[in-house]
Amino acid sequence: MTIGIVGLGLMGGSLGLDLHKLPFIKRVVGSDHNPEHCQSALKLGLVDAIVDEDTLLRCDVIFLAIPVDAIVKAIRAMEGKLRPETTVIDLGSTKAKIAASIPPSIRKNVVTAHPMTGTEHFGPEAAVSGLYKDKVVVLCDMEDSGQLQQETAVRLFSGLFMRLHYMRANEHDRHAAFISHMPHAISYSLANTVMHQEDKYSILALAAGGFRSMSRLAKSSPVMWEDVFRQNKDHLLEAISLFEDELAAMKKAIKREKWDEVHERLAAGQKLHDILKD
Amino acid sequence: MTIGIVGLGLMGGSLGLDLHKLPFIKRVVGSDHNPEHCQSALKLGLVDAIVDEDTLLRCDVIFLAIPVDAIVKAIRAMEGKLRPETTVIDLGSTKAKIAASIPPSIRKNVVTAHPMTGTEHFGPEAAVSGLYKDKVVVLCDMEDSGQLQQETAVRLFSGLFMRLHYMRANEHDRHAAFISHMPHAISYSLANTVMHQEDKYSILALAAGGFRSMSRLAKSSPVMWEDVFRQNKDHLLEAISLFEDELAAMKKAIKREKWDEVHERLAAGQKLHDILKD
Repeated sequence: MTIGIVGLGLMGGSLGLDLHKLPFIKRVVGSDHNPEHCQSALKLGLVDAIVDEDTLLRCDVIFLAIPVDAIVKAIRAMEGKLRPETTVIDLGSTKAKIAASIPPSIRKNVVTAHPMTGTEHFGPEAAVSGLYKDKVVVLCDMEDSGQLQQETAVRLFSGLFMRLHYMRANEHDRHAAFISHMPHAISYSLANTVMHQEDKYSILALAAGGFRSMSRLAKSSPVMWEDVFRQNKDHLLEAISLFEDELAAMKKAIKREKWDEVHERLAAGQKLHDILKD
Repeated sequence: MTIGIVGLGLMGGSLGLDLHKLPFIKRVVGSDHNPEHCQSALKLGLVDAIVDEDTLLRCDVIFLAIPVDAIVKAIRAMEGKLRPETTVIDLGSTKAKIAASIPPSIRKNVVTAHPMTGTEHFGPEAAVSGLYKDKVVVLCDMEDSGQLQQETAVRLFSGLFMRLHYMRANEHDRHAAFISHMPHAISYSLANTVMHQEDKYSILALAAGGFRSMSRLAKSSPVMWEDVFRQNKDHLLEAISLFEDELAAMKKAIKREKWDEVHERLAAGQKLHDILKD
């Protein structure tokens, strides 16, 4: 099996590193719009070669590890160029708009997937082995993909030791808004709150682990997250509003000194970790 | 030098572990209102002995590693019972109310300190060696403490390899609201937002590192944090309001599809990490 990876940043690069280890994979090639990324990816051994579009389209499997808007364009540009047995797997963070944009003539070629993994770093230098291991991958609308494409995706993600979840693209997007996109909006807003303080330097001198973990997501790529926010706008706005309501209720209870209610809210939030088991 | 530690949880227990290693410390004893904590602390070697109040008051240094409200009561109860050379160091997360509550007759005995460290775990079993190393400790209103007490506190915190910062109690409380207390309110509210979703189980099945780091603080003790919120109410409410404004502005830009503004906000938040250097 030959693999082509479009986008050699954190996600695509880490994928290349680990796909190399699967015995049934012969060759992993890639491309990136940024020539420096191509150089780094080669030097770091993320892919065996940097190839042009024609070579990429001849791969058995093509992964799209690029921002969501770019995925939509890339899949549209593939219309009429894919063999029936080619599998295209997109790794975008939102799924409904991507799924809706796939030309019907190549719908069976495409598997829309979201690996729930990553770090706040980006670019080929951020690629690490093991990024996908033991993590969840959400496979959306699988019945719309061809039988061969479904099997190929399952074989690859299982080979990376991922935990496979199946759901509709729209359901995924709502879940992802709560679990990932809204928390990113919070983290960036928290960062901006402190940055707008006159004495930000003396405030940040006191930063310990708690603040660092709350602001860590605000290190992520603004280009990527602007794109995610745009693609998942409605679910994101809903999730932000529900969070705002929770925070406003907490604030109101503090303001009115209803300490029993404050305590109940803290204790209720703590119960989350019974489910997360972390 | 003999050390007494009141409160043998995460903070007090970890302190006991590392103070044992300082060559000039002869003995570390402790007390805790919870008899099980006393047993655990002895078994884990956090302190050499569990002692009664009289023995504790004869120690050279008494650390108060208990919730803020309990610190206020404990210091008041010490009036008339301390030798002039005793040093009492409180480790509360807020400082102004504690400082204001110290009886004038023992003001010189007390050093009000806030070590900016911790984990989301609590109780004696959570105690770890190295918790204080390389972390910031804020020493407040030091000019109100006696010369001997100032020197003792500096010697001990330096011995733990902490980075000493000096400021007024009120300034500390405002900074702490931004860097610690408000982020805790956010984390608990984020947890509650998801917990109130009907399909919380399928949402949480997708939780990856990002969500876990944003919800980690919501594992903290509700008893302790109710207390902190009460003691630092005004600064906390101010910080929450400023955060709400930032998030509302982000939401508005997303709603109106002002993607350039969204991008600017994300890029501005990312700049935080140039200061944090993490």
